[in-house]
Amino acid sequence: MTAFPVSDRTSSLRIAPGPVDLGSIDTDAAPGYDGNKTTGAEDLIAMGPELADLQERLWADGKAEGKRNILLVLQGMDTSGKGGTLRSTVGLVDPQGVRITSFKAPTEEERAHDFLWRITNALPPVGVIGVFDRSHYEDVLIARVRSFAEPDEIERRYGAINAWEADLAANGTTIIKCMLHISAEEQKQRLLDRLEDPAKHWKFNPGDLDERAEWPAYREAYEIAIERTNTEVAPWHVIPADKKWYRNLAIGTLLLDALKSLDLDWPKADFDVAVEKQRLADEKPL
Amino acid sequence: MTAFPVSDRTSSLRIAPGPVDLGSIDTDAAPGYDGNKTTGAEDLIAMGPELADLQERLWADGKAEGKRNILLVLQGMDTSGKGGTLRSTVGLVDPQGVRITSFKAPTEEERAHDFLWRITNALPPVGVIGVFDRSHYEDVLIARVRSFAEPDEIERRYGAINAWEADLAANGTTIIKCMLHISAEEQKQRLLDRLEDPAKHWKFNPGDLDERAEWPAYREAYEIAIERTNTEVAPWHVIPADKKWYRNLAIGTLLLDALKSLDLDWPKADFDVAVEKQRLADEKPL
Repeated sequence: MTAFPVSDRTSSLRIAPGPVDLGSIDTDAAPGYDGNKTTGAEDLIAMGPELADLQERLWADGKAEGKRNILLVLQGMDTSGKGGTLRSTVGLVDPQGVRITSFKAPTEEERAHDFLWRITNALPPVGVIGVFDRSHYEDVLIARVRSFAEPDEIERRYGAINAWEADLAANGTTIIKCMLHISAEEQKQRLLDRLEDPAKHWKFNPGDLDERAEWPAYREAYEIAIERTNTEVAPWHVIPADKKWYRNLAIGTLLLDALKSLDLDWPKADFDVAVEKQRLADEKPL
Repeated sequence: MTAFPVSDRTSSLRIAPGPVDLGSIDTDAAPGYDGNKTTGAEDLIAMGPELADLQERLWADGKAEGKRNILLVLQGMDTSGKGGTLRSTVGLVDPQGVRITSFKAPTEEERAHDFLWRITNALPPVGVIGVFDRSHYEDVLIARVRSFAEPDEIERRYGAINAWEADLAANGTTIIKCMLHISAEEQKQRLLDRLEDPAKHWKFNPGDLDERAEWPAYREAYEIAIERTNTEVAPWHVIPADKKWYRNLAIGTLLLDALKSLDLDWPKADFDVAVEKQRLADEKPL
């Protein structure tokens, strides 16, 4: 095992308060990790049993009227690997204990509400790991780049997000916010790969290239959004994501750290164990 | 690979039309499979890549306006392993493509509707594998054993279920109905195991023993329900489930067979691939 400990992970991926310069963060790096592609994949798989055990404790805690849950927010440009991360890391725990929501363009009903309405509806119950594939951050990212909302409204949203996330955290939710950070060159290669492979054509949409053309505007929108919403209770992590194996290992480690930090014991029995054993011992033939 | 082919699986697990005698089905058997616990676990894992590939085809088909999906219904007495099956088999495919619903006692709102209302609400969208951990069958099982509904109403429900499932199937859903079949002795052992292990106390509820005391009534309710709803488009399978590894392998095989039977190709591109490649080649520096 060469997986990095909590402190190294935190110091290398967590974004410091203040202005954010994504250009200074190497998309092809593997901060805090000495291994390579092979060991990275092995180390992620090796986390599986502990992840599964801790997830079951969280689930059990929820059944026993605990109030804890986890919300993993994944943001990133097209092809940055939000879906692949889900398969590789979230796939390591019991699917019953996970609730995944992929946010698309809002429906008419959703647009008739505040932007946080549909997000709130998708929150995980207690005991569950919620995963957002895109999120309320689209409402300050694409909404800013494409002028889907007035500048005043975008401005209001940063504060609204911080208040909403603070409330979540105060209610027992551990929030993990991650931006999957790829280079424009890496995206180009991944889009070309999709075009080359008929089994991947369904993943491609010509509109993806229109979004790609706005790369600098998206970078700026991300930098502002991260700076404005990088709070103590809901900090941002930027994950170098050109290396898929590193991206998966990093997200897996963040999830593991979050679960560990809950320090959950198995719930105590709310019945008399000896009495129940005796009932079974004494039962009449069925 | 010693996994059993479709025809063997069908003939050994699928229940023939007519009266059902669960007592004649050995809960500890491994019908259609020559291997053992070790090979069974290996064969299930070996199915993973094909399951994942076929599930992705189903998902892609749904994105391309296909109408297909799968509904896996898991029924069985407490401790029969509905949850364990989910972890072991459904955990082999992309969690984004799966929608799991665990049905508990209906809420007040649910009770204010027909019994199929909450079930319909939980149906998977196109492209998705839906899994029901318990289902509408509780409304003819516990409802019959515990007299939660009048006999006339229970009687009505068998027909209502058949009509509802026929409609689902006609609309593109492949329905796989499985009863996880354990012996009363095996359940006793599993309940004792839960009582022995403090890490499993949260799974135990004294009410479980009250339900267990009704074992013969549940068996009869299952036999009637299976006979009355064992239709061509939504047939029942009874899975010997004392051996956990066999149970998992059998359900995995049923899921694989269902996915194979859809015979799905990757969706054709609805855009001009050459044009999009040229757009990427011609793009201005970002």
